[in-house]
Amino acid sequence: MEHAADPTHPRYRSLLMRHRLEVAAEKGMLADSALIAHGRGEAYDYLLGERTIPSAEFAAKVALRSLKEAANPVLSLNGNVVALAGDEMLQLADLLDCPVEVNIFYRTPERMDALLSDLDERNNRLGLNVEILGANPDADIPGLKGPRARCEAKGILQSDVILVPLEDGDRCQALVAMGKTVIVIDLNPLSRSSQTGTITIVNEVTRCIAEMIDSFDSELPLLSDYDHEEILQSSLDSIVHGMKGRFKSVE
Amino acid sequence: MEHAADPTHPRYRSLLMRHRLEVAAEKGMLADSALIAHGRGEAYDYLLGERTIPSAEFAAKVALRSLKEAANPVLSLNGNVVALAGDEMLQLADLLDCPVEVNIFYRTPERMDALLSDLDERNNRLGLNVEILGANPDADIPGLKGPRARCEAKGILQSDVILVPLEDGDRCQALVAMGKTVIVIDLNPLSRSSQTGTITIVNEVTRCIAEMIDSFDSELPLLSDYDHEEILQSSLDSIVHGMKGRFKSVE
Repeated sequence: MEHAADPTHPRYRSLLMRHRLEVAAEKGMLADSALIAHGRGEAYDYLLGERTIPSAEFAAKVALRSLKEAANPVLSLNGNVVALAGDEMLQLADLLDCPVEVNIFYRTPERMDALLSDLDERNNRLGLNVEILGANPDADIPGLKGPRARCEAKGILQSDVILVPLEDGDRCQALVAMGKTVIVIDLNPLSRSSQTGTITIVNEVTRCIAEMIDSFDSELPLLSDYDHEEILQSSLDSIVHGMKGRFKSVE
Repeated sequence: MEHAADPTHPRYRSLLMRHRLEVAAEKGMLADSALIAHGRGEAYDYLLGERTIPSAEFAAKVALRSLKEAANPVLSLNGNVVALAGDEMLQLADLLDCPVEVNIFYRTPERMDALLSDLDERNNRLGLNVEILGANPDADIPGLKGPRARCEAKGILQSDVILVPLEDGDRCQALVAMGKTVIVIDLNPLSRSSQTGTITIVNEVTRCIAEMIDSFDSELPLLSDYDHEEILQSSLDSIVHGMKGRFKSVE
Protein backbone atom coordinates (compact mmCIF):
# COMPACT_ATOMS: atom_id res chain seq x y z
CA MET A 1 0.00 0.00 0.00
CA GLU A 2 2.77 2.43 0.92
CA HIS A 3 4.11 2.46 -2.63
CA ALA A 4 0.85 1.91 -4.48
CA ALA A 5 -1.14 4.68 -2.83
CA ASP A 6 -1.68 7.95 -4.62
CA PRO A 7 0.35 10.76 -2.98
CA THR A 8 -2.06 13.37 -4.34
CA HIS A 9 -4.95 11.86 -2.33
CA PRO A 10 -5.92 14.38 0.39
CA ARG A 11 -5.68 11.70 3.06
CA TYR A 12 -2.48 10.12 1.66
CA ARG A 13 -0.24 11.15 4.52
CA SER A 14 -2.68 10.11 7.20
CA LEU A 15 -3.22 6.73 5.51
CA LEU A 16 0.52 6.27 5.07
CA MET A 17 1.11 6.85 8.81
CA ARG A 18 -1.64 4.36 9.68
CA HIS A 19 -0.09 1.86 7.33
CA ARG A 20 3.29 2.28 9.04
CA LEU A 21 1.62 1.61 12.39
CA GLU A 22 -0.11 -1.50 11.04
CA VAL A 23 3.19 -2.87 9.80
CA ALA A 24 4.82 -2.09 13.17
CA ALA A 25 1.95 -3.72 15.06
CA GLU A 26 2.38 -6.90 13.00
CA LYS A 27 6.07 -6.92 13.92
CA GLY A 28 5.22 -6.69 17.64
CA MET A 29 6.76 -3.24 17.99
CA LEU A 30 3.78 -1.49 19.57
CA ALA A 31 2.07 -1.43 22.97
CA ASP A 32 -1.72 -1.88 23.17
CA SER A 33 -2.18 1.83 23.71
CA ALA A 34 -0.19 2.83 20.60
CA LEU A 35 -3.10 3.19 18.20
CA ILE A 36 -5.22 5.15 20.67
CA ALA A 37 -2.27 7.47 21.26
CA HIS A 38 -1.89 7.91 17.52
CA GLY A 39 -5.59 8.76 17.21
CA ARG A 40 -5.21 11.46 19.84
CA GLY A 41 -2.32 12.86 17.82
CA GLU A 42 -4.41 12.77 14.64
CA ALA A 43 -7.08 14.90 16.32
CA TYR A 44 -4.58 17.56 17.38
CA ASP A 45 -2.86 17.51 14.00
CA TYR A 46 -6.23 18.02 12.34
CA LEU A 47 -6.82 21.05 14.57
CA LEU A 48 -3.39 22.42 13.61
CA GLY A 49 -4.32 22.07 9.94
CA GLU A 50 -1.87 19.17 9.40
CA ARG A 51 0.96 21.60 8.82
CA THR A 52 4.01 22.98 10.61
CA ILE A 53 2.91 26.15 12.38
CA PRO A 54 5.48 29.01 12.57
CA SER A 55 6.09 28.61 16.32
CA ALA A 56 6.86 24.90 15.80
CA GLU A 57 9.26 25.70 12.98
CA PHE A 58 11.09 28.13 15.27
CA ALA A 59 11.14 25.71 18.21
CA ALA A 60 12.50 22.96 15.93
CA LYS A 61 15.35 25.22 14.82
CA VAL A 62 16.23 26.09 18.42
CA ALA A 63 16.10 22.38 19.23
CA LEU A 64 18.35 21.54 16.31
CA ARG A 65 20.93 24.09 17.39
CA SER A 66 20.89 22.70 20.95
CA LEU A 67 21.42 19.19 19.60
CA LYS A 68 24.25 20.34 17.31
CA GLU A 69 26.01 22.15 20.15
CA ALA A 70 25.51 19.39 22.72
CA ALA A 71 28.44 17.45 24.13
CA ASN A 72 26.41 14.22 24.32
CA PRO A 73 23.17 14.43 22.37
CA VAL A 74 20.88 11.40 22.14
CA LEU A 75 17.59 10.69 20.37
CA SER A 76 15.18 8.61 22.45
CA LEU A 77 12.85 6.34 20.47
CA ASN A 78 9.68 4.54 21.49
CA GLY A 79 7.44 2.24 19.46
CA ASN A 80 5.32 4.84 17.71
CA VAL A 81 8.37 6.96 16.86
CA VAL A 82 10.21 4.02 15.28
CA ALA A 83 7.05 3.03 13.39
CA LEU A 84 6.29 6.52 12.09
CA ALA A 85 9.70 8.12 11.71
CA GLY A 86 12.35 5.43 12.19
CA ASP A 87 14.20 6.35 8.99
CA GLU A 88 14.10 10.08 9.68
CA MET A 89 15.39 9.59 13.25
CA LEU A 90 18.36 7.55 12.02
CA GLN A 91 19.12 10.15 9.34
CA LEU A 92 19.07 12.93 11.94
CA ALA A 93 21.26 10.91 14.33
CA ASP A 94 23.70 10.32 11.48
CA LEU A 95 23.92 14.07 10.77
CA LEU A 96 24.40 14.77 14.49
CA ASP A 97 26.82 11.86 14.83
CA CYS A 98 24.97 10.73 17.95
CA PRO A 99 23.32 7.51 19.12
CA VAL A 100 19.64 6.68 19.24
CA GLU A 101 18.30 4.79 22.26
CA VAL A 102 15.17 2.67 22.33
CA ASN A 103 13.35 3.54 25.52
CA ILE A 104 9.79 2.32 25.85
CA PHE A 105 7.21 2.82 28.55
CA TYR A 106 5.87 -0.75 28.54
CA ARG A 107 9.20 -2.56 28.29
CA THR A 108 9.10 -6.24 27.40
CA PRO A 109 12.00 -8.25 25.91
CA GLU A 110 9.84 -9.08 22.86
CA ARG A 111 9.03 -5.46 22.06
CA MET A 112 12.63 -4.36 22.66
CA ASP A 113 13.88 -7.07 20.29
CA ALA A 114 11.33 -6.15 17.63
CA LEU A 115 12.25 -2.45 17.82
CA LEU A 116 16.01 -3.02 17.87
CA SER A 117 15.95 -5.35 14.90
CA ASP A 118 13.65 -3.02 12.96
CA LEU A 119 16.14 -0.19 13.54
CA ASP A 120 19.04 -2.43 12.50
CA GLU A 121 17.27 -3.19 9.24
CA ARG A 122 16.62 0.51 8.64
CA ASN A 123 20.26 1.37 9.43
CA ASN A 124 21.42 -1.17 6.84
CA ARG A 125 18.86 -0.23 4.22
CA LEU A 126 19.79 3.46 4.52
CA GLY A 127 23.52 2.67 4.41
CA LEU A 128 24.02 4.31 7.80
CA ASN A 129 26.03 3.26 10.78
CA VAL A 130 24.14 4.93 13.63
CA GLU A 131 24.79 3.51 17.10
CA ILE A 132 21.56 1.93 18.36
CA LEU A 133 21.33 1.71 22.14
CA GLY A 134 18.75 0.18 24.44
CA ALA A 135 19.63 -3.50 24.38
CA ASN A 136 21.83 -3.31 27.47
CA PRO A 137 20.24 -1.08 30.09
CA ASP A 138 22.80 -0.59 32.86
CA ALA A 139 21.45 2.55 34.54
CA ASP A 140 18.27 4.07 35.93
CA ILE A 141 16.64 7.47 35.44
CA PRO A 142 16.34 8.78 39.02
CA GLY A 143 12.78 9.25 40.24
CA LEU A 144 11.18 6.57 38.06
CA LYS A 145 10.24 3.06 39.15
CA GLY A 146 10.51 -0.33 37.49
CA PRO A 147 11.35 -1.12 33.86
CA ARG A 148 10.42 2.35 32.66
CA ALA A 149 13.40 3.79 34.57
CA ARG A 150 15.94 1.62 32.71
CA CYS A 151 18.38 3.23 30.28
CA GLU A 152 21.97 2.99 29.10
CA ALA A 153 24.75 4.82 30.95
CA LYS A 154 26.47 5.87 27.73
CA GLY A 155 23.19 6.95 26.14
CA ILE A 156 20.31 8.64 27.93
CA LEU A 157 21.99 8.74 31.36
CA GLN A 158 25.02 10.78 30.36
CA SER A 159 23.31 12.87 27.67
CA ASP A 160 23.14 16.64 28.10
CA VAL A 161 20.59 17.24 25.34
CA ILE A 162 17.91 14.63 24.64
CA LEU A 163 15.16 14.52 22.01
CA VAL A 164 12.06 12.71 23.31
CA PRO A 165 9.24 12.63 20.77
CA LEU A 166 5.82 11.44 22.03
CA GLU A 167 7.15 11.04 25.56
CA ASP A 168 5.28 10.16 28.74
CA GLY A 169 4.86 13.06 31.18
CA ASP A 170 6.52 11.35 34.16
CA ARG A 171 9.61 10.43 32.21
CA CYS A 172 9.86 13.86 30.65
CA GLN A 173 9.73 15.40 34.11
CA ALA A 174 12.36 12.99 35.45
CA LEU A 175 14.74 13.84 32.60
CA VAL A 176 14.29 17.57 33.17
CA ALA A 177 14.97 17.01 36.89
CA MET A 178 18.32 15.48 35.90
CA GLY A 179 19.32 18.88 34.49
CA LYS A 180 19.17 17.84 30.84
CA THR A 181 17.92 19.99 27.98
CA VAL A 182 14.80 17.99 27.08
CA ILE A 183 13.34 18.52 23.61
CA VAL A 184 9.73 17.36 23.37
CA ILE A 185 7.80 16.73 20.15
CA ASP A 186 4.11 16.51 21.00
CA LEU A 187 0.94 17.52 19.15
CA ASN A 188 -0.89 18.50 22.33
CA PRO A 189 0.44 21.79 23.71
CA LEU A 190 -1.46 21.10 26.94
CA SER A 191 0.16 17.73 27.69
CA ARG A 192 2.42 17.43 30.71
CA SER A 193 5.36 16.59 28.44
CA SER A 194 4.76 19.73 26.37
CA GLN A 195 4.53 21.81 29.49
CA THR A 196 7.54 20.36 31.33
CA GLY A 197 9.99 20.03 28.41
CA THR A 198 12.83 22.53 27.99
CA ILE A 199 11.98 23.04 24.32
CA THR A 200 8.61 21.90 22.99
CA ILE A 201 7.82 21.43 19.32
CA VAL A 202 4.08 21.14 18.72
CA ASN A 203 4.18 19.17 15.48
CA GLU A 204 3.73 15.73 13.94
CA VAL A 205 6.95 13.80 14.51
CA THR A 206 7.66 12.69 10.93
CA ARG A 207 7.06 16.14 9.49
CA CYS A 208 9.15 17.70 12.26
CA ILE A 209 12.19 15.46 11.87
CA ALA A 210 12.13 15.74 8.06
CA GLU A 211 12.19 19.53 8.42
CA MET A 212 15.02 19.42 10.98
CA ILE A 213 17.04 17.41 8.47
CA ASP A 214 16.25 19.95 5.73
CA SER A 215 17.32 22.91 7.86
CA PHE A 216 20.37 21.16 9.32
CA ASP A 217 22.87 23.50 7.66
CA SER A 218 20.86 26.70 7.83
CA GLU A 219 21.30 29.51 10.35
CA LEU A 220 19.67 28.56 13.63
CA PRO A 221 18.36 30.58 16.60
CA LEU A 222 19.81 30.30 20.10
CA LEU A 223 18.11 28.66 23.07
CA SER A 224 18.15 32.10 24.71
CA ASP A 225 15.79 33.29 21.94
CA TYR A 226 13.24 30.64 22.93
CA ASP A 227 10.37 31.60 25.25
CA HIS A 228 8.66 28.40 26.37
CA GLU A 229 5.37 29.92 27.46
CA GLU A 230 5.15 32.07 24.35
CA ILE A 231 5.72 29.06 22.09
CA LEU A 232 3.03 27.00 23.85
CA GLN A 233 0.58 29.89 23.82
CA SER A 234 1.25 30.44 20.14
CA SER A 235 0.55 26.75 19.38
CA LEU A 236 -2.69 26.97 21.27
CA ASP A 237 -3.61 30.15 19.41
CA SER A 238 -2.99 28.35 16.10
CA ILE A 239 -5.34 25.55 17.14
CA VAL A 240 -8.02 27.97 18.29
CA HIS A 241 -7.63 30.08 15.18
CA GLY A 242 -7.81 27.00 12.96
CA MET A 243 -11.00 25.86 14.64
CA LYS A 244 -12.69 29.20 14.22
CA GLY A 245 -11.64 29.48 10.60
CA ARG A 246 -12.97 26.07 9.75
CA PHE A 247 -16.24 26.56 11.47
CA LYS A 248 -17.23 29.29 9.03
CA SER A 249 -17.80 26.55 6.46
CA VAL A 250 -20.83 25.28 8.40
CA GLU A 251 -24.00 26.03 6.48
CA MET B 1 -10.04 -5.22 35.32
CA GLU B 2 -13.44 -3.63 34.77
CA HIS B 3 -14.61 -4.70 38.23
CA ALA B 4 -11.30 -4.55 40.05
CA ALA B 5 -10.33 -1.03 39.02
CA ASP B 6 -10.78 1.82 41.44
CA PRO B 7 -13.63 4.14 40.34
CA THR B 8 -12.10 7.03 42.26
CA HIS B 9 -8.96 6.93 40.07
CA PRO B 10 -8.90 10.10 37.93
CA ARG B 11 -8.40 8.04 34.79
CA TYR B 12 -10.90 5.31 35.76
CA ARG B 13 -13.43 6.14 33.09
CA SER B 14 -10.88 6.44 30.33
CA LEU B 15 -9.26 3.13 31.33
CA LEU B 16 -12.67 1.46 31.55
CA MET B 17 -13.52 2.55 28.00
CA ARG B 18 -10.16 1.25 26.75
CA HIS B 19 -10.79 -2.03 28.50
CA ARG B 20 -14.18 -2.34 26.79
CA LEU B 21 -12.48 -1.79 23.43
CA GLU B 22 -9.84 -4.41 24.19
CA VAL B 23 -12.53 -6.96 25.05
CA ALA B 24 -14.40 -6.07 21.85
CA ALA B 25 -11.24 -6.32 19.76
CA GLU B 26 -10.60 -9.82 21.13
CA LYS B 27 -14.13 -10.81 20.12
CA GLY B 28 -13.50 -9.59 16.54
CA MET B 29 -16.05 -6.79 16.81
CA LEU B 30 -13.81 -3.93 15.70
CA ALA B 31 -12.31 -2.66 12.45
CA ASP B 32 -8.59 -1.87 12.28
CA SER B 33 -9.32 1.82 12.51
CA ALA B 34 -11.42 1.53 15.69
CA LEU B 35 -8.67 2.30 18.19
CA ILE B 36 -7.36 5.25 16.21
CA ALA B 37 -10.90 6.63 16.00
CA HIS B 38 -11.26 6.17 19.75
CA GLY B 39 -8.02 8.05 20.35
CA ARG B 40 -9.30 10.97 18.29
CA GLY B 41 -12.41 10.97 20.46
CA GLU B 42 -10.28 10.91 23.62
CA ALA B 43 -8.47 14.05 22.47
CA TYR B 44 -11.69 15.97 21.87
CA ASP B 45 -13.21 14.72 25.12
CA TYR B 46 -10.10 15.92 26.94
CA LEU B 47 -10.54 19.36 25.38
CA LEU B 48 -14.20 19.37 26.48
CA GLY B 49 -13.08 18.61 30.04
CA GLU B 50 -14.51 15.05 29.91
CA ARG B 51 -17.93 16.32 30.88
CA THR B 52 -21.31 17.01 29.30
CA ILE B 53 -21.32 20.64 28.23
CA PRO B 54 -24.63 22.55 28.52
CA SER B 55 -25.21 22.73 24.75
CA ALA B 56 -24.77 18.94 24.50
CA GLU B 57 -27.22 18.40 27.34
CA PHE B 58 -29.76 20.54 25.53
CA ALA B 59 -29.17 18.83 22.16
CA ALA B 60 -29.54 15.42 23.82
CA LYS B 61 -32.91 16.41 25.26
CA VAL B 62 -34.14 17.66 21.87
CA ALA B 63 -32.90 14.41 20.36
CA LEU B 64 -34.68 12.35 22.98
CA ARG B 65 -37.95 14.15 22.35
CA SER B 66 -37.59 13.57 18.59
CA LEU B 67 -36.97 9.88 19.20
CA LYS B 68 -39.94 9.60 21.58
CA GLU B 69 -42.27 11.31 19.11
CA ALA B 70 -41.01 9.41 16.06
CA ALA B 71 -43.24 6.98 14.20
CA ASN B 72 -40.33 4.64 13.44
CA PRO B 73 -37.25 5.44 15.49
CA VAL B 74 -34.12 3.29 15.18
CA LEU B 75 -30.73 3.29 16.89
CA SER B 76 -27.85 2.52 14.51
CA LEU B 77 -24.88 0.73 16.09
CA ASN B 78 -21.33 0.25 14.84
CA GLY B 79 -18.45 -1.61 16.44
CA ASN B 80 -17.18 1.12 18.74
CA VAL B 81 -20.70 1.98 19.89
CA VAL B 82 -21.48 -1.63 20.79
CA ALA B 83 -18.13 -1.96 22.56
CA LEU B 84 -18.43 1.28 24.54
CA ALA B 85 -22.17 1.64 25.11
CA GLY B 86 -23.87 -1.59 24.03
CA ASP B 87 -25.81 -1.93 27.29
CA GLU B 88 -26.90 1.70 27.35
CA MET B 89 -28.06 1.56 23.73
CA LEU B 90 -30.21 -1.51 24.42
CA GLN B 91 -31.66 0.15 27.53
CA LEU B 92 -32.55 3.26 25.54
CA ALA B 93 -34.07 1.18 22.74
CA ASP B 94 -36.13 -0.69 25.33
CA LEU B 95 -37.49 2.59 26.76
CA LEU B 96 -38.26 3.84 23.24
CA ASP B 97 -39.67 0.44 22.25
CA CYS B 98 -37.68 0.58 19.03
CA PRO B 99 -35.17 -1.68 17.29
CA VAL B 100 -31.40 -1.29 17.13
CA GLU B 101 -29.62 -2.04 13.84
CA VAL B 102 -26.01 -3.01 13.46
CA ASN B 103 -24.65 -1.02 10.56
CA ILE B 104 -20.91 -0.99 10.11
CA PHE B 105 -18.70 0.78 7.65
CA TYR B 106 -16.32 -2.10 7.00
CA ARG B 107 -18.91 -4.88 6.79
CA THR B 108 -17.65 -8.44 6.92
CA PRO B 109 -19.74 -11.49 7.90
CA GLU B 110 -17.34 -12.19 10.80
CA ARG B 111 -17.66 -8.74 12.33
CA MET B 112 -21.42 -8.70 11.83
CA ASP B 113 -21.71 -12.09 13.59
CA ALA B 114 -19.48 -10.96 16.46
CA LEU B 115 -21.50 -7.79 16.97
CA LEU B 116 -24.90 -9.46 16.69
CA SER B 117 -24.02 -12.20 19.15
CA ASP B 118 -22.50 -9.71 21.58
CA LEU B 119 -25.76 -7.72 21.49
CA ASP B 120 -27.81 -10.91 21.97
CA GLU B 121 -25.78 -11.72 25.08
CA ARG B 122 -26.28 -8.19 26.42
CA ASN B 123 -30.04 -8.36 25.69
CA ASN B 124 -30.28 -11.61 27.70
CA ARG B 125 -28.07 -10.44 30.54
CA LEU B 126 -30.07 -7.24 30.93
CA GLY B 127 -33.37 -9.15 30.77
CA LEU B 128 -34.47 -7.10 27.75
CA ASN B 129 -36.15 -8.11 24.55
CA VAL B 130 -34.95 -5.41 22.15
CA GLU B 131 -35.25 -6.26 18.45
CA ILE B 132 -31.72 -6.47 17.01
CA LEU B 133 -31.56 -5.86 13.26
CA GLY B 134 -28.70 -6.03 10.80
CA ALA B 135 -28.40 -9.73 10.11
CA ASN B 136 -30.65 -9.64 7.04
CA PRO B 137 -29.90 -6.54 4.98
CA ASP B 138 -32.58 -6.34 2.27
CA ALA B 139 -32.32 -2.68 1.28
CA ASP B 140 -29.81 0.01 0.32
CA ILE B 141 -29.30 3.57 1.53
CA PRO B 142 -29.52 5.60 -1.72
CA GLY B 143 -26.33 7.39 -2.69
CA LEU B 144 -23.91 4.94 -1.04
CA LYS B 145 -21.98 2.21 -2.78
CA GLY B 146 -21.14 -1.37 -1.84
CA PRO B 147 -21.55 -3.09 1.53
CA ARG B 148 -21.70 0.19 3.43
CA ALA B 149 -25.05 0.98 1.74
CA ARG B 150 -26.75 -2.20 3.05
CA CYS B 151 -29.48 -1.95 5.68
CA GLU B 152 -32.78 -3.50 6.68
CA ALA B 153 -36.06 -2.28 5.15
CA LYS B 154 -37.91 -2.49 8.45
CA GLY B 155 -35.07 -0.76 10.35
CA ILE B 156 -32.92 2.03 8.99
CA LEU B 157 -34.65 2.28 5.58
CA GLN B 158 -38.14 3.06 6.89
CA SER B 159 -37.07 5.01 9.99
CA ASP B 160 -38.11 8.64 10.31
CA VAL B 161 -35.76 9.45 13.22
CA ILE B 162 -32.37 7.71 13.47
CA LEU B 163 -29.65 7.94 16.11
CA VAL B 164 -26.19 7.48 14.58
CA PRO B 165 -23.39 7.76 17.15
CA LEU B 166 -19.82 7.97 15.79
CA GLU B 167 -21.07 7.88 12.21
CA ASP B 168 -19.13 8.25 8.98
CA GLY B 169 -19.71 11.57 7.17
CA ASP B 170 -20.84 10.06 3.87
CA ARG B 171 -23.43 7.85 5.49
CA CYS B 172 -24.69 10.65 7.67
CA GLN B 173 -25.14 12.82 4.60
CA ALA B 174 -26.94 10.02 2.72
CA LEU B 175 -29.37 9.51 5.61
CA VAL B 176 -30.12 13.25 5.80
CA ALA B 177 -30.71 13.25 2.03
CA MET B 178 -33.40 10.58 2.59
CA GLY B 179 -35.36 13.17 4.61
CA LYS B 180 -34.78 11.53 8.00
CA THR B 181 -34.16 13.36 11.26
CA VAL B 182 -30.55 12.28 11.84
CA ILE B 183 -29.21 12.53 15.40
CA VAL B 184 -25.41 12.53 15.51
CA ILE B 185 -23.29 11.90 18.60
CA ASP B 186 -19.73 13.02 17.84
CA LEU B 187 -16.98 14.57 19.96
CA ASN B 188 -15.65 16.66 17.08
CA PRO B 189 -17.97 19.58 16.34
CA LEU B 190 -16.05 20.16 13.11
CA SER B 191 -16.57 16.68 11.66
CA ARG B 192 -18.71 16.30 8.56
CA SER B 193 -21.18 14.16 10.53
CA SER B 194 -21.51 16.86 13.18
CA GLN B 195 -22.04 19.47 10.54
CA THR B 196 -24.52 17.58 8.36
CA GLY B 197 -26.65 15.94 11.09
CA THR B 198 -30.11 17.30 11.90
CA ILE B 199 -29.35 17.31 15.64
CA THR B 200 -25.74 17.02 16.81
CA ILE B 201 -24.74 16.09 20.35
CA VAL B 202 -21.06 16.87 20.99
CA ASN B 203 -20.46 14.37 23.77
CA GLU B 204 -18.91 11.02 24.61
CA VAL B 205 -21.39 8.33 23.57
CA THR B 206 -21.62 6.36 26.84
CA ARG B 207 -22.06 9.48 28.94
CA CYS B 208 -24.61 10.84 26.47
CA ILE B 209 -26.81 7.72 26.33
CA ALA B 210 -26.73 7.26 30.11
CA GLU B 211 -27.95 10.85 30.50
CA MET B 212 -30.68 10.37 27.88
CA ILE B 213 -31.90 7.38 29.90
CA ASP B 214 -31.86 9.45 33.11
CA SER B 215 -33.86 12.28 31.58
CA PHE B 216 -36.26 10.01 29.69
CA ASP B 217 -39.31 11.08 31.70
CA SER B 218 -38.38 14.72 32.24
CA GLU B 219 -39.75 17.69 30.32
CA LEU B 220 -38.02 17.96 26.96
CA PRO B 221 -37.49 20.84 24.52
CA LEU B 222 -38.88 20.81 20.97
CA LEU B 223 -36.89 20.41 17.78
CA SER B 224 -38.02 23.92 16.86
CA ASP B 225 -36.05 25.22 19.88
CA TYR B 226 -32.85 23.72 18.45
CA ASP B 227 -30.48 25.96 16.45
CA HIS B 228 -27.90 23.73 14.79
CA GLU B 229 -25.29 26.39 14.11
CA GLU B 230 -25.64 27.83 17.60
CA ILE B 231 -25.18 24.40 19.19
CA LEU B 232 -22.06 23.67 17.15
CA GLN B 233 -20.62 27.12 17.83
CA SER B 234 -21.29 26.70 21.53
CA SER B 235 -19.49 23.33 21.56
CA LEU B 236 -16.53 24.90 19.86
CA ASP B 237 -16.57 27.78 22.33
CA SER B 238 -16.48 25.26 25.19
CA ILE B 239 -13.43 23.58 23.69
CA VAL B 240 -11.66 26.88 23.12
CA HIS B 241 -12.60 28.13 26.58
CA GLY B 242 -11.40 24.87 28.16
CA MET B 243 -8.07 25.14 26.38
CA LYS B 244 -7.50 28.68 27.50
CA GLY B 245 -8.47 27.91 31.09
CA ARG B 246 -6.12 24.98 31.29
CA PHE B 247 -3.23 26.77 29.78
CA LYS B 248 -3.05 29.16 32.72
CA SER B 249 -1.58 26.32 34.75
CA VAL B 250 1.62 26.43 32.69
CA GLU B 251 4.43 27.76 34.80
